[in-house]
Amino acid sequence: MNQPWEELIVALDGKGLERLQQAAVSALSSLKRPTGPRSNITPTELHELIWSTPICTEDGNSLEQVLTEFGENVWSNSVVPFDPGCVAHLHPPTLLPSIVTELTVAVMNQSMDSWDQAPAATEVELHLMAWLASLMGMPLSGSGVMTSGGTASNLLGLTLARSFAGSQLGVDVLKRGNPEQAKHWRILCSDQAHFSIQRAAAQLGLGRDAVVTIPTSASGAMDIAALDRRISELEAQSATGIAIVGTAGTTDLGVIDPLDEIAERARSINAWFHVDAAVAGAYLISDQLKPMLKGIENADSVTIDFHKLWFQPFNASALVVKDVERFDLLRVKSNYLDRGDEIEGMTNLVGRSLDTSRRFDAAKVVAALRVLGRVSLGEMVERVVSLSSYAAAKIEASAQLVLLAKPTGAMCVFCAEGFTSDDLRRVQQSLLMRGEMVLGRTEIKGEAALKFTFMNPLATEEDIDRLIGLVINELQAS
Amino acid sequence: MNQPWEELIVALDGKGLERLQQAAVSALSSLKRPTGPRSNITPTELHELIWSTPICTEDGNSLEQVLTEFGENVWSNSVVPFDPGCVAHLHPPTLLPSIVTELTVAVMNQSMDSWDQAPAATEVELHLMAWLASLMGMPLSGSGVMTSGGTASNLLGLTLARSFAGSQLGVDVLKRGNPEQAKHWRILCSDQAHFSIQRAAAQLGLGRDAVVTIPTSASGAMDIAALDRRISELEAQSATGIAIVGTAGTTDLGVIDPLDEIAERARSINAWFHVDAAVAGAYLISDQLKPMLKGIENADSVTIDFHKLWFQPFNASALVVKDVERFDLLRVKSNYLDRGDEIEGMTNLVGRSLDTSRRFDAAKVVAALRVLGRVSLGEMVERVVSLSSYAAAKIEASAQLVLLAKPTGAMCVFCAEGFTSDDLRRVQQSLLMRGEMVLGRTEIKGEAALKFTFMNPLATEEDIDRLIGLVINELQAS
Repeated sequence: MNQPWEELIVALDGKGLERLQQAAVSALSSLKRPTGPRSNITPTELHELIWSTPICTEDGNSLEQVLTEFGENVWSNSVVPFDPGCVAHLHPPTLLPSIVTELTVAVMNQSMDSWDQAPAATEVELHLMAWLASLMGMPLSGSGVMTSGGTASNLLGLTLARSFAGSQLGVDVLKRGNPEQAKHWRILCSDQAHFSIQRAAAQLGLGRDAVVTIPTSASGAMDIAALDRRISELEAQSATGIAIVGTAGTTDLGVIDPLDEIAERARSINAWFHVDAAVAGAYLISDQLKPMLKGIENADSVTIDFHKLWFQPFNASALVVKDVERFDLLRVKSNYLDRGDEIEGMTNLVGRSLDTSRRFDAAKVVAALRVLGRVSLGEMVERVVSLSSYAAAKIEASAQLVLLAKPTGAMCVFCAEGFTSDDLRRVQQSLLMRGEMVLGRTEIKGEAALKFTFMNPLATEEDIDRLIGLVINELQAS
Repeated sequence: MNQPWEELIVALDGKGLERLQQAAVSALSSLKRPTGPRSNITPTELHELIWSTPICTEDGNSLEQVLTEFGENVWSNSVVPFDPGCVAHLHPPTLLPSIVTELTVAVMNQSMDSWDQAPAATEVELHLMAWLASLMGMPLSGSGVMTSGGTASNLLGLTLARSFAGSQLGVDVLKRGNPEQAKHWRILCSDQAHFSIQRAAAQLGLGRDAVVTIPTSASGAMDIAALDRRISELEAQSATGIAIVGTAGTTDLGVIDPLDEIAERARSINAWFHVDAAVAGAYLISDQLKPMLKGIENADSVTIDFHKLWFQPFNASALVVKDVERFDLLRVKSNYLDRGDEIEGMTNLVGRSLDTSRRFDAAKVVAALRVLGRVSLGEMVERVVSLSSYAAAKIEASAQLVLLAKPTGAMCVFCAEGFTSDDLRRVQQSLLMRGEMVLGRTEIKGEAALKFTFMNPLATEEDIDRLIGLVINELQAS
């Protein structure tokens, strides 16, 4: 029989705790994974399977039954980010301390918008943000806020940039809307920047066309001479660069723009300097890799994705600012939430966020950092970078594959001599459909490419040899 | 000794599963809650306590130690949404099936942006969205996407509205930016609409000033005669109402605007009709309450917050559209993610979202709906509404308190005869500081008010008597 709803509401008394623990153990036991990185079900079969179970019946079902269904239908047809063959995206295996902290977060269900919905959680998030800012070398005024992802962090950073540009003209953009001059506002980034920069410009009413992309040099990093030319051209056109975005870890090549030089250019034209470090932000934790991020301390705002190379479950991103007062550009009072007459020491984080209700995502990040410590986490990041170097060497040595760039991060892009874009697509899709590999596919300078993204520090050199072998076999079969 | 990082990466083999289960049980055991809805620690003491534990040491710590710290420092100083004295906000106690599903979500870590990061999860989300649209009475073309919260859902709905307005002029707003005419664009909503409507207008570059608020009648619902007058005035000023927002459940009073009549006005001026049903959307599940939402089926887009009266852990919100093709207004291709050359049947949800990487939040919602069933969930929603009616009757009968509106939902607002705004603030803050009650405080038509928000179906009439008694005592002591 099904449980009455009274027993399904969370409680922490003796019986409530016991029920939670039993259910948690059952839920974990019910997890079924495909043997490889994915099952071989087709999209159409999967659609039929999932849609054949009703979302909501009149009378419900036992928890055991529902967990079993999820195991058999959903999880066994999911991709497995902790399988060495899952190498398409920046899609990490997650960490034990983070996973179990998620469980406690769901029990306690704090909401980060106001202190009276998250008193201790607010301080944990503020502490994490201060630590992160200091890790970047920012002054004590550095702080930040958690967001749902890199796209949201970039949007928040550029929202602040737009308000900053408005404030220079004496216009409160959030109140009055984009001023007349906004049609001349430009956001500069490299041609390898993430598409969320364009999306942010679109959201902000500036339009994707307001994004000026600067060519990259052979390495894939922003070409500073080209940036200088573009800045001069904009001046000649009476256009205003309101923000320059430096990318710390491009999506396909993992390349880091020359942040110090961009910072200087931003300062010289009084533009906001935003760094999108979603991909390479985790280098901060490694003595070996951190020097690559030199200059990040000069950014006005920085995007960090904990759900990439910090191995956190989604969602866990942050927007860090060098000067916490910059959030004043954003703050709106509300009658019921952030009234401005709170008791000394109560921070309502809604004042620095584009969200209102918001999950306590900082908890899992802090739990993982506390358990692992800096040295271990740094080793994990270094490990995936070294796997990518290993793959690159193997690809360079292969007769069939062509390495497209020497990797600097966890990604490794390549194509195959004599094979077309369609061939590469077929290889990626066949491996995906048979459930043998979740391989990445992209374009590098307009040319089709395949991509490995190594996110699993437990993957071995033998795993990589096997993956490369699978790609070569599939090319030969195509 | 601390575990090597190799053992902290998720795995589902025998040893990995055992480690996960043990850690989950420990994590739940480590949860410490304050005896009441909150501890009595001051903000300053709490700051010092939380900041005294370093975020990240060189060598890490045992999982047990970190869980214990969280229990003692964080959870025991959190608010307790499942305590009957936690009545400030739309901040629910969560459900067992959802909580343990969160655990599995963190293990499997699907990312909803692309099919190859979430094949089954994509179908689950699509299925849930179709069910939700059909529950509203929308045609088969109805669908949607999960977002991080009501604020994000409202932003997405109004982003579509802005693109729709642009498309009428032949302008691709996302590409070109807000056109010249945008300075005459207006978003109409009632003066009780949530502040996220203003924030959306601000994000979109229209500015908060572009939001025209329509007065509400005595009940707190949008005054349709006033709407008609405002529409005529806008026409006379050559301004364009690009969207009308109907609120289904205002934040303070829970009032539902006359959706049918607003739908008709929106149609007549060719404006987008968005319904913010974050608060009252759960009425859809109750035969008794559902009729109050009549007209919602005519909306172009609807915000539903599962993390309110559907008792889901944060984050869980949805933006539902009547016609899935409307998402075409949003879609941007990318080289590495949503290329447009995928295998038949593969949906990349990034095409309808403002996010990229995104958590599988649909899982917990579906698990709860499947376990509870419609009847039980409906009873829970009806229960909190009846608790609010009970409180209203008690307040009306009291000599000291003044009921400010007859409740239609889970909220109940009141003030006290002869007490000032400052007195009410002191009452709310004292109860919060002593950890006796997390009470709401707001303004109703410019006057200070206290607010109960009953989110716990397990709360009893005796609990409410006690809470009212506490407020009266505190008023008398002030």
